[in-house]
Amino acid sequence: MSIVVRKVSGLKVKMCRVACLLALVVLVSPAADALDNGLALKPTMGWLHWERFMCNIDCERDPNNCISERLYMQMADVMAKEGWKEAGYEYVCIDDCWPSRQRDAQGRLQADPKRFPAGIKKLADYVHSKGLKLGIYADVGKKTCAGYPGSLGYYETDAQTFADWDVDLLKFDGCNMDWTLLGEGYVNMSKALNKTGRSILYSCEWPLYEWPFQKPNYTAIREACNHWRNYADVYDSWSSVKSIVEWTASHQDVIVPSAGPGGWNDPDMLVIGNFGLSHAQQESQMALWAIMAAPLLVSNDLRDICPRSKELLQNRHIIAISQDPLGKQGYRTAKVDNFEAWERPLSQKRLAIAVLNLMEIGGPRGFFLRAVPGWKICDPQCNVTQILPQYQELGVQTPHTRVVVSVNPSGTALLTVTPISGDATELNKLSWEDASVKRRRIIL
Amino acid sequence: MSIVVRKVSGLKVKMCRVACLLALVVLVSPAADALDNGLALKPTMGWLHWERFMCNIDCERDPNNCISERLYMQMADVMAKEGWKEAGYEYVCIDDCWPSRQRDAQGRLQADPKRFPAGIKKLADYVHSKGLKLGIYADVGKKTCAGYPGSLGYYETDAQTFADWDVDLLKFDGCNMDWTLLGEGYVNMSKALNKTGRSILYSCEWPLYEWPFQKPNYTAIREACNHWRNYADVYDSWSSVKSIVEWTASHQDVIVPSAGPGGWNDPDMLVIGNFGLSHAQQESQMALWAIMAAPLLVSNDLRDICPRSKELLQNRHIIAISQDPLGKQGYRTAKVDNFEAWERPLSQKRLAIAVLNLMEIGGPRGFFLRAVPGWKICDPQCNVTQILPQYQELGVQTPHTRVVVSVNPSGTALLTVTPISGDATELNKLSWEDASVKRRRIIL
Repeated sequence: MSIVVRKVSGLKVKMCRVACLLALVVLVSPAADALDNGLALKPTMGWLHWERFMCNIDCERDPNNCISERLYMQMADVMAKEGWKEAGYEYVCIDDCWPSRQRDAQGRLQADPKRFPAGIKKLADYVHSKGLKLGIYADVGKKTCAGYPGSLGYYETDAQTFADWDVDLLKFDGCNMDWTLLGEGYVNMSKALNKTGRSILYSCEWPLYEWPFQKPNYTAIREACNHWRNYADVYDSWSSVKSIVEWTASHQDVIVPSAGPGGWNDPDMLVIGNFGLSHAQQESQMALWAIMAAPLLVSNDLRDICPRSKELLQNRHIIAISQDPLGKQGYRTAKVDNFEAWERPLSQKRLAIAVLNLMEIGGPRGFFLRAVPGWKICDPQCNVTQILPQYQELGVQTPHTRVVVSVNPSGTALLTVTPISGDATELNKLSWEDASVKRRRIIL
Repeated sequence: MSIVVRKVSGLKVKMCRVACLLALVVLVSPAADALDNGLALKPTMGWLHWERFMCNIDCERDPNNCISERLYMQMADVMAKEGWKEAGYEYVCIDDCWPSRQRDAQGRLQADPKRFPAGIKKLADYVHSKGLKLGIYADVGKKTCAGYPGSLGYYETDAQTFADWDVDLLKFDGCNMDWTLLGEGYVNMSKALNKTGRSILYSCEWPLYEWPFQKPNYTAIREACNHWRNYADVYDSWSSVKSIVEWTASHQDVIVPSAGPGGWNDPDMLVIGNFGLSHAQQESQMALWAIMAAPLLVSNDLRDICPRSKELLQNRHIIAISQDPLGKQGYRTAKVDNFEAWERPLSQKRLAIAVLNLMEIGGPRGFFLRAVPGWKICDPQCNVTQILPQYQELGVQTPHTRVVVSVNPSGTALLTVTPISGDATELNKLSWEDASVKRRRIIL
C-alpha cells in the first residue's frame, strides 16, 4: 500500500514558526479531517476532457476530437512538451463516454474497444511515461450521465479494476442514483478505493446532487473525498462562470470551512483557451479559481490554444496562490459599486486579493485597495505585488495609502500583500487573519 | 445647398442589367421612400464614444479618457493613420455629455469650455483636415439622457448651430420626451436639419422610445431619418449582443422591409476590441451587423486595440457585405439545433450567409450549408467563399453538394455565394431572391 499517511494539520505545522505553533493548530485546522489518503494536499491540477470534448464518440468522422486513447495520448504529449507539466498540471483526465456499453464476463468495466484498442492500462503506462498521471470517470448510480454502465453494485470491482489499470484519479459522477443513497454510495466507493492500496485521488459530485434535497454534510464529504463539485457544470460562457462565482460566494459560510489540504470545493473546470470568454474574463476565471483554492482542471484543446491563454494558465504567480501551502480557501469580502473583492489568506501571513469588475460597459475602473478588509495587514506596512492584468511591484504601502488598481470590465485585478512588521505584532495579526472571516461577513 | 438629390430606386437601377430592370423596380424598392438627403446610401461607418467612454467628464483625473476635444482628435488621428479611413470608417462621433449645462445668451448649445476649449467648429475643422467627418449628439426632449440641455423648443436653433459648426452627423436621442410627441419632434428636427442646407446625416432613436407604447410607423421613420435605433443599448457582453440579435430576428418582418439605401435599422454600436467579447463572439457581432446592414459605429479605444480585433473590424470582405450596393437587410432564415442561419441578398444576385453557433459548450460544430434556404441559388451551380472564421475559397457547388462549415461555439461562419448560371434562368432567380423572404419565414 503506497498511501502516504500524513495528518493535514501536521503539514501546516511545518510551515509555521515555533512561536505561533499553538495558535495555528487551534485557529487554522480545517473544520473536519480530510480524506486521509495523502493526496490533493494542494488543489489538483490537470486536464479533463468534458467541457471541450463532451461525449464525442464519432471517431470515424472526427478522429482528432473523439473520446479515444489517441486524444489523451496527444494531450499528455503536449502537457509534457509545452510547459504544462512544469507549471504543475499533472493529471490527464478521462470523463464520461469512455467505456463499452456492457461490462465484461467478469462484471468489469471495459474501455470501448474501437476507441481504446490498447486499453486503459496501456494508456496509463503511456501517460506515466510522460511523468503525468491518469484520471478516469465512473458514476455512483446505475448509469453514467451519458448512459454508460454505472458503478452501483460494483464499487469494489470497479475500484479494483481502476487500481489494476494503474489509474491515479477517479471522477465519480452522481447521475441515476436515488439521492438518499448518495452518501452511502460515495463513502463506499471511497472505502473501496482505499482498500485497493493504490493512491487514487477521489473527485466527488456528492453535494451537487444532494443540494436540491438537503444541505449536504460537508464534514462527511471531506472525510470521503479529495474534492467535490457543489454546483452546476461550467459552460464556455461568462454567464456560466459568473453564476458559479456567485453561487460560491452566496454559500461561502457553508462551504469554505470544509476546504483545506486533502479536500477542496470544486467549482468545475477552467474553460480558458476555448471560445466563450474574452481575455479579461479568462483572467477573472483564473484569478478567482486560485482564490477559491479550486482544482485547476482545464478543459480545452491544448494542441491548439492561443498564446495569451496558455501564458495565463501557466502563470506561475497565479499558480503559486492556487497551490499555497496554507491551503485555505478564499472568501468574497466586499461587494460594492459593481466591484467584488475576494481575499485568500496565504502562508507566511500573506494575503491574495482579487478585485472583480462586474460592470459590463465602459472602460477600466479604479478600485481603492484600502477598501478591502484584509488591507489591515498593511499596518504598519506591507509590500504589494500586482499579478493581473499585468505583473507589477506596487511597493511598500501603509493602511492609509491610496493605492488604486485599474480593473477591466468583466476582468479581475489580482494581487498579493505581504505584511512587513516587527515580531511583537506577529501573533496579533495571525489571529486576526482567522477571526477576520467573521468580520468580513458583516460588511457584505 | 450641397444635398445630393438622388432617388433610392434610381441607385439600384444602375447596378442592374437591362434585362431585369422592370423586375427590380417592382420587387426591390424599399417599402417607403428614404429620407431624401443623399446620405447613408450605404450603412454609416465610423466611431462613436458612448459604449466605451460613456459620460466620463473627469478630465482632471482621467485626461486620456474623458469626453473632450482631445479624445476625438486622437481618434481622428488614429483613424486617418491606421487604416480605419481606408477601410471605410468615416464619422468620428460625439455622444452625450459634450455640452455646457446651460445654453448661451442666444439660446444656443455650447460645448463645455473646459473640455472643448477650441469649440466644436475647430474640432470639425480638425476632423475634416484628416479626411473624416464629425458627428454630434442631442436629444429630442427637454434634457439629454445624462441631463444636459435637450433640444425641445430649439430644433431650428440647434440644427443651425450644428450646421454653422460644419457638423456632419446628428445622433438625436429620445430621453425626457412625452412619447406621443416623439414623431413630431423627430420629424421637425429632420426638417430643421434639411432647412440648414448642410448635409447632416440624421441618426434617430424614435422607434426605440416608441416600442414600449405602440408599434412604430417605419414608413414615417424612414422618411425622416437615415438610421434609427430600435432596441436597448449595447453592452460589452455576449448576452447583450445576443439579445439584440434575437430582438432583430423576432421583429424582422416589421423592421427589415424599411431598410434600404438612405435609411437603416441601427442595432447599436460594435463593441469589438473591448473587454467583454471573446474573439469568436467578436466575429459573430461583425458578421451579423454586416448581414443586418447595420451602421458600423465602433465604440472602443482605437488607440489601444488588439491586432486581431483591428483586423476583424477592417476585414474588407465583411465590410463589402455591409456596404453592398443592393442595400437590402438580411433575415434570419433558419433556427435549428442551436444554429441560426442568416441570409442577406447581395448585388449581382449573390447571397451572404451567416451561420451562428449558439451552443456554449463543446468544440466547433459542423453545419450543412444546403440546409440554408438560399442555397437554392446554387441551382445549377454556385461559387462559395468563406470569410469567417478563416478566408477560404470553397469552390463550385451544386444544390446537392454536402458542404459542411465548422462553426465555433458562440462564433459565426460567414460566407458569400455567387450563382453560376445561363442567361435563361436569370430572371427566375432574381424573382426568387425576393419571394424567398416569404418562404423563409415559413421554416422558422
